[in-house]
Amino acid sequence: MKPINVGLLGIGTVGGGVYAVLERNADEIARRAGREIRITVVADRDIERARRLTNGAVKLTDDALGVTRDPDIDIVVELIGGETLAKDLALSAIENGKHFVTANKALLAVHGNEIFAAARRRDVMVAFEAAVAGGIPIIKALRESLSANRIEWVAGIINGTTNFILSEMRDKGLPFAEVLRQAQRLGYAEADPTFDIEGVDAAHKATIMSAIAFGIPMQFDKAHVEGISRLESVDIGYAGQLGYRIKLLGIARKRPEGIELRVHPTLVHANKLLANVEGAMNAVLVQADAVGATLYYGKGAGAEPTASAVIADLVDITRLHTADPEHRVPHLAFQPDQVLDVPVLPIGEALTSFYLRMRVLDKPGVLADITRILADSDISIDAMIQREAGEGESQTDIIMLTHQTVEKNAEAAIARIEALDSVQGKVTRLRLETL
Amino acid sequence: MKPINVGLLGIGTVGGGVYAVLERNADEIARRAGREIRITVVADRDIERARRLTNGAVKLTDDALGVTRDPDIDIVVELIGGETLAKDLALSAIENGKHFVTANKALLAVHGNEIFAAARRRDVMVAFEAAVAGGIPIIKALRESLSANRIEWVAGIINGTTNFILSEMRDKGLPFAEVLRQAQRLGYAEADPTFDIEGVDAAHKATIMSAIAFGIPMQFDKAHVEGISRLESVDIGYAGQLGYRIKLLGIARKRPEGIELRVHPTLVHANKLLANVEGAMNAVLVQADAVGATLYYGKGAGAEPTASAVIADLVDITRLHTADPEHRVPHLAFQPDQVLDVPVLPIGEALTSFYLRMRVLDKPGVLADITRILADSDISIDAMIQREAGEGESQTDIIMLTHQTVEKNAEAAIARIEALDSVQGKVTRLRLETL
Repeated sequence: MKPINVGLLGIGTVGGGVYAVLERNADEIARRAGREIRITVVADRDIERARRLTNGAVKLTDDALGVTRDPDIDIVVELIGGETLAKDLALSAIENGKHFVTANKALLAVHGNEIFAAARRRDVMVAFEAAVAGGIPIIKALRESLSANRIEWVAGIINGTTNFILSEMRDKGLPFAEVLRQAQRLGYAEADPTFDIEGVDAAHKATIMSAIAFGIPMQFDKAHVEGISRLESVDIGYAGQLGYRIKLLGIARKRPEGIELRVHPTLVHANKLLANVEGAMNAVLVQADAVGATLYYGKGAGAEPTASAVIADLVDITRLHTADPEHRVPHLAFQPDQVLDVPVLPIGEALTSFYLRMRVLDKPGVLADITRILADSDISIDAMIQREAGEGESQTDIIMLTHQTVEKNAEAAIARIEALDSVQGKVTRLRLETL
Repeated sequence: MKPINVGLLGIGTVGGGVYAVLERNADEIARRAGREIRITVVADRDIERARRLTNGAVKLTDDALGVTRDPDIDIVVELIGGETLAKDLALSAIENGKHFVTANKALLAVHGNEIFAAARRRDVMVAFEAAVAGGIPIIKALRESLSANRIEWVAGIINGTTNFILSEMRDKGLPFAEVLRQAQRLGYAEADPTFDIEGVDAAHKATIMSAIAFGIPMQFDKAHVEGISRLESVDIGYAGQLGYRIKLLGIARKRPEGIELRVHPTLVHANKLLANVEGAMNAVLVQADAVGATLYYGKGAGAEPTASAVIADLVDITRLHTADPEHRVPHLAFQPDQVLDVPVLPIGEALTSFYLRMRVLDKPGVLADITRILADSDISIDAMIQREAGEGESQTDIIMLTHQTVEKNAEAAIARIEALDSVQGKVTRLRLETL
């Protein structure tokens, strides 16, 4: 059969990985796909870099838009990143009847609904295994492998930068800012790490998973997004004493009232597999009614792990590109007319447990006041540490884990606790998930 | 679109699960598949049980072969188990142009080559996600998600019964026979547990994974199969002291000389995720050149987890059953003419590390003799415990972990050690994998 011609937009880290793996494993891939998959044109602003990486074996251009219109190209792979140019390229590729593969989570979380609608009109495939959790095949698992199930929730460590920082903060007892600088030196964090450390990247990925898991549109603007930049080492320590680790989780949960979609630092019990995913690794845990819990673990970033996912999409498309659209897996797992407009709930409606740390005066009755407020709000306490006040100290810490409650209920109780004379400053709260 | 009609052969535990999940999640499944998937006939020897489980909603028969010839049936699902009747049913279904779904690992590991050849002749699909690791989508991951990669090895905890027994032996310090009886009482082990405890079931699954991972035919008869029935608690204890847990692993590894295909109790370092897969859970770790290590975890058995995998196959086939065969994923991941006859190596050629436990006379020079023999054979020692002989004891234990060596080389050295006057009885050896 004749080869499939791929136009590669962007030959940076991931693009370079795709090029290298396609070349190195050409035989193995063709043995599976039944035909050759070859990159015939590469678009990059940096033509010199592109030339170096491709050894002059393919056509080079700085006109990415031109590639999306090239009649010889069957599949366009977008690895430029960002939202603006990438969206133009996606829509142009689709408009010109190209299948479109991307690793760009921001693009899909923000503009996915528009892009998938355009793809349906033109009967082309949009594939994005690499957009969530890099080399871990979580998109295919959710879309195809769990198709018998009602998926109940998805919870993932889906940002390697923050997971690396959290592992280091715990292991070395260092503060956030110092570990971040170290991560930047080691190349685990970007020069501008905002998207990673503030949870935006994880929220893009959680948004994509929520759409596929529940058959809903992308609703990134409704996601609750909280990063790790304000996390204090003292809380990692107390959590450890209570048997928990703190992970930045992306969570999507279906409830009768709607969807919870949230990213935040989360206490996870140390005996759970998810708590033991360390460093830059990713993992996604899925709870579904028939299969129960399944977990998918691997490298969530990097040139070749991400390339593995991009090329798997290329092989899938190669197989199906001449098949009727009805033979394809729907973009969002559910048939387009079966995507339901279920709302994402405001964070106040989230059902979660809490870790609370309070700075209190070391005097009788304080604990009684606090527990009374919690009891009034129907919040029950699962575990507690009261740090002993040191010699001559007038203040001490109380740390509590609560059972599950509605978040706005907890917030109201916490406001009452903060109003107590014996409680100093704000109550530090972190969410805890039993998973 | 018109519904897909499924004939279900066998409505025992798994068959009952498939029926129940297809009914309970009919809407969710149809939202994904684009059409209804319905069981229209059930064949079972026990018509009364079938009637009870189906509430009389479908046609019942005790003639399974008749179902494979029924012109109204699109897909035949075989959940009877065993090799003889199941093979006849598979070949008859295929001969009659039905797509065929099975959870039967023995059938595929032993007769898979013949069945896939028949399916190719008749242009029908054979799907078997449920045959390996129950609800974990490892077949799809190996076949589709890792298609960019040269897969280097696969190592899995793929038998829940033995994993449960090993977890219990370690946690409670009980001997094998006693834990087995307890597992039988709890329903985690069959009345005749031979296939599970002797590693045969795991070897069937490892054989299937090896074929898909490396593009080779099923070669179950070449697999090295060793179960856990002779494993002693004392070795679980010593392994623990050295930082390791003992798991029954199914391993398939590609080497330039051929394929290693082996099932045996294996020391795995306690800090590895695989070592922390406890009880009846399953997990498969895959090492591949581009993506690195990925791990897939979940329930490896049970009615609904297995049903989840069976129904995922039904959805896949529903999507593709009217598509040209070239649009389908090849049965063994690689195109039929690209399945290569790479040999499975004899166990003597396996590359592995060893745990060795020796009963020795407590006198000077013994250790020197043993380490000299190992050094002569180029086997280096990674760690060692010498148990102190108790008051009045004339014998003691030496436990060693070796670095990787060719197995026949280790066996020759062990024979020389056993021939030493100071070494009592046989040397206990267990394989260790660094994974």
